[in-house]
Amino acid sequence: MRRWWPSLPCLEWGRQYTRATLVGDAVAALIVTIMLIPQSLAYALLAGLPPEVGLYASVAPLLLYAVFGSSRVLAVGPVAVVSLMTAAAIGDLAAPETPAYWQVAITLAFLSGAMLLAMGLLRLGFLANFLSHPVISGFITASGLLIAASQLRTLLGVKAEGHNLPQLLWALAQQLPRAHGLTLTVGAGCVAFLFWARKSATRLLLRLGLAPLAADMLAKAGPVGAIALTTGLAWALDWSGQGLKIVGHVPQGLPPLTWPAWDPALWRQLAVPALLIGVVGFVESVSVGQTLAAKRRQRIGPDQELVALGASNLAAAFTGGFPVTGGFARSVVNFDAGAQTPAAGVFTALGLLAASLLLTPALHYLPQATLAATIVVAVLSLVDFGMLLRTWRYAKADFAAVAATLGGTLLLGVEQGLMVGVTLSLALHLHHSSRPHIAEVGLVPGTEYFRNVRRHAVQTSPQLLSLRVDESLYFANARALEDRVNDEVAANPQLRHVVLQCSAINDIDASALESLEAIDHRLREAGISLHLSEVKGPVMDKLQRTELLRYLGRRVYLTHFQAVSALAPDLVHHPLN
Amino acid sequence: MRRWWPSLPCLEWGRQYTRATLVGDAVAALIVTIMLIPQSLAYALLAGLPPEVGLYASVAPLLLYAVFGSSRVLAVGPVAVVSLMTAAAIGDLAAPETPAYWQVAITLAFLSGAMLLAMGLLRLGFLANFLSHPVISGFITASGLLIAASQLRTLLGVKAEGHNLPQLLWALAQQLPRAHGLTLTVGAGCVAFLFWARKSATRLLLRLGLAPLAADMLAKAGPVGAIALTTGLAWALDWSGQGLKIVGHVPQGLPPLTWPAWDPALWRQLAVPALLIGVVGFVESVSVGQTLAAKRRQRIGPDQELVALGASNLAAAFTGGFPVTGGFARSVVNFDAGAQTPAAGVFTALGLLAASLLLTPALHYLPQATLAATIVVAVLSLVDFGMLLRTWRYAKADFAAVAATLGGTLLLGVEQGLMVGVTLSLALHLHHSSRPHIAEVGLVPGTEYFRNVRRHAVQTSPQLLSLRVDESLYFANARALEDRVNDEVAANPQLRHVVLQCSAINDIDASALESLEAIDHRLREAGISLHLSEVKGPVMDKLQRTELLRYLGRRVYLTHFQAVSALAPDLVHHPLN
Repeated sequence: MRRWWPSLPCLEWGRQYTRATLVGDAVAALIVTIMLIPQSLAYALLAGLPPEVGLYASVAPLLLYAVFGSSRVLAVGPVAVVSLMTAAAIGDLAAPETPAYWQVAITLAFLSGAMLLAMGLLRLGFLANFLSHPVISGFITASGLLIAASQLRTLLGVKAEGHNLPQLLWALAQQLPRAHGLTLTVGAGCVAFLFWARKSATRLLLRLGLAPLAADMLAKAGPVGAIALTTGLAWALDWSGQGLKIVGHVPQGLPPLTWPAWDPALWRQLAVPALLIGVVGFVESVSVGQTLAAKRRQRIGPDQELVALGASNLAAAFTGGFPVTGGFARSVVNFDAGAQTPAAGVFTALGLLAASLLLTPALHYLPQATLAATIVVAVLSLVDFGMLLRTWRYAKADFAAVAATLGGTLLLGVEQGLMVGVTLSLALHLHHSSRPHIAEVGLVPGTEYFRNVRRHAVQTSPQLLSLRVDESLYFANARALEDRVNDEVAANPQLRHVVLQCSAINDIDASALESLEAIDHRLREAGISLHLSEVKGPVMDKLQRTELLRYLGRRVYLTHFQAVSALAPDLVHHPLN
Repeated sequence: MRRWWPSLPCLEWGRQYTRATLVGDAVAALIVTIMLIPQSLAYALLAGLPPEVGLYASVAPLLLYAVFGSSRVLAVGPVAVVSLMTAAAIGDLAAPETPAYWQVAITLAFLSGAMLLAMGLLRLGFLANFLSHPVISGFITASGLLIAASQLRTLLGVKAEGHNLPQLLWALAQQLPRAHGLTLTVGAGCVAFLFWARKSATRLLLRLGLAPLAADMLAKAGPVGAIALTTGLAWALDWSGQGLKIVGHVPQGLPPLTWPAWDPALWRQLAVPALLIGVVGFVESVSVGQTLAAKRRQRIGPDQELVALGASNLAAAFTGGFPVTGGFARSVVNFDAGAQTPAAGVFTALGLLAASLLLTPALHYLPQATLAATIVVAVLSLVDFGMLLRTWRYAKADFAAVAATLGGTLLLGVEQGLMVGVTLSLALHLHHSSRPHIAEVGLVPGTEYFRNVRRHAVQTSPQLLSLRVDESLYFANARALEDRVNDEVAANPQLRHVVLQCSAINDIDASALESLEAIDHRLREAGISLHLSEVKGPVMDKLQRTELLRYLGRRVYLTHFQAVSALAPDLVHHPLN
């Protein structure tokens, strides 16, 4: 069933392409293009890059995703969280809005793409499982807060820096008296309008008689309206002359051909951020893709998605872009607008290509505060404090992971926060699984069944200890079994036999084998013999390649009842054998 | 049963102390003291420290371990692997044999002790489970090789440096023509004698009529004999004048009172090595302690051991020592010589204190090559290439962990090698557990049982899919369930119901809950309903605090048969309800 090479899903949908599919794709592409123009500019600014880089990063990646992607409707390009991570990764290495900074961004996209591609070809998609849901959730909320806070600078028209959220907010509070009135008015106005457009515009448009889909699409074009209006006003009223920051000159032309920096020292510095950006982008993208695919009973292949996102990021690196991934909002719009195949992505790419060729002069007077407003409104929907409450109620370990990631990201930074979360959730998982459920079992009188001595009235013998391990034994929990057996032996001086009922053990790794050998060795030193019962077939196959069974000799019993019948015959009232 | 504070085991054994115990402890202490004097000097040199520091590190830690330790016979002090790790940690920070280097060693012992103590008080002993047996095994073998190679310098009387084993061996090969004849003769002679003493001396002494225990003890005193002989010869024949390196002036006196450096920058640099040294020492110590305790049906408490080793290392830091742990060879000798309680450790400490007060002038002419020979012979017993073969036969994943740790340690260094091993074994474990066993089950005709459709002749319905998950669901494997359900839904257009049989699920974490909600959401979008059956009590309690059950409504069935009876009545030939 599993293929071991990446496929070309475009061959499949390309063959069934019809005129109806074309119309659906073209309409969706038009709507997504209109939505993406302001988003691309805004996220490029968020990443600390010139606005046109956002357009460049939205062309080639979409084309490559159309070739390799397994989702029919995923829209790839710059997204908020990845742009924030990009800014955090480059921040210490180059000054924003310089060619060196752009070069590092290109290199970051290259490394991230190469890692994703390699992970896809090696089928390492499971590595994304390291990012548990609480970690992702805490990280996304923290990112939303960090991004919103960083945009407050632009909305207030002041300069403020900080290495973490409290520092940044404190710097902003100090700058508050110097806020630029016009900038603040434009920014606050846009934020208010965009929130209204998001919450209430659809309802208004429906009441005005528009069809539901059209009303929804028009409401989603809110940012475009805000941009057109404020750009027009900035031009007509010479807001720039009054101190309002505008986007300024945006070069007109095709995305440039670029090369990543071939600098091993830089690669080493970018390795961890590139991996984190790739994996976070992958997790976000796959969850969007799976949700949308399921609605049409389609499926996506996680390893194929790694290949497609890897190729998309490499494409971004060679065409002047920066790290990209599948975005939530744009993919949902693409889906709702009726996109049927990744050809919609190709048409969107063409639309953005046209925009970067023709539209950039029109963006000269676009106020930066307007773009900041679109970002703030977009990212505040990422913020979900409810997760803290839900995980607190559900399980304290999950709550700890959310809280640590959230706090770590806000106070230490995006990479550090993710690392804290991943480390903590792994540690908690290991802690949990290092204490396997081990029950002492006894014979249910008159039967051949064995049950937990703590929950049932069962018969036991002081000379024989029956332990049932309810999990597979591996390095993290093998020592717990050693400890338990040691404790029981120390507590029961009459003990002569220990029988492990292995019915729930699906695997025994080399560490656990070593533990069993150590247990066997120590028991023999103390004059006690170790026996196994009900060992599963695959586990028995593995054990037969070891010395343990040689020591144990014939002391592996098919059923626990046989073991007890042989070792403590007085316990068994109605012997069978 | 579990106490949440460290105890003082010395109160327990101290109350039952008798004259017989005293005699046993005193005899054992005498033998261990004789064995420890050369070992302490040699391991201090291995760590790059003056020889007397080895004596200092063998006094106070033994006293503290006697107060806090839960093992009756563990002997704490400098050991080979920890000394190597100490040298590796300090190598880049200070020049060997300088006061600055010693100061860093003291700080390392302090940090390592503080971390162990904190882990013990917080009951974080489970963190040692991160070091799986293959990782430990590969690391110990690599350490043995690295230590032996590093001692070849001293045995050849040349200078050679290398950042990894191939570099070091290459540098040694180039220096071979410049080897110092006398040094090589003394060194090779000692190595040959010590190997003989280890392998054959006991047999010879037995044939000469000694009692078995006495013969064994005398054979173990081989290093002392070699030291006495070569020191005497070096003094009598003025070997030092002929270019043989001797230990030289060793200060006479009590261990000094010292303070770790209070330098946050240094602490940051030492944090990872200190943690690794602490954990490796703990793992080594606990496995020795457990093995010896079991022989007398005693037990040791891992968290108590963390406290005891932490206190021992703190004691080392304040008395001019360096990182210590429970040693294998010395603990076995202590046990075999009849030590009954940690009082033997107190007497050993007094013996070593006497040695550092009185004996150091006698060590002036001790050839360094003799000490190197004792190290080489001691550590080559750590080397076990058989582990590669055994794990290769047993399980490829375990083999990969051994090989990566071994190769990483030899080529990259001790810390890096451990990190590579830990990361790889965690990744392999996650990879393994990210693919839980999920079986499609069907009804065994004429019964209420459900079995795997691949192994049994069972009845299924195209409208109903029954899946049984054979493991607890958590972040690493939740996505696999999502993928499986997505695949099945895409493949079966007639599907109307999915029932998850949860009989083997012991826990569902927040990530897995999110996955279940996503599955439920996507299935509903596709017109399919999700049901659960046979949910265990504790899991049901957790789920009842969530929104999932509200969505699922009454669709949680007590038995899988009830679920199928309700959802696909045509499948059930003899309806019960």
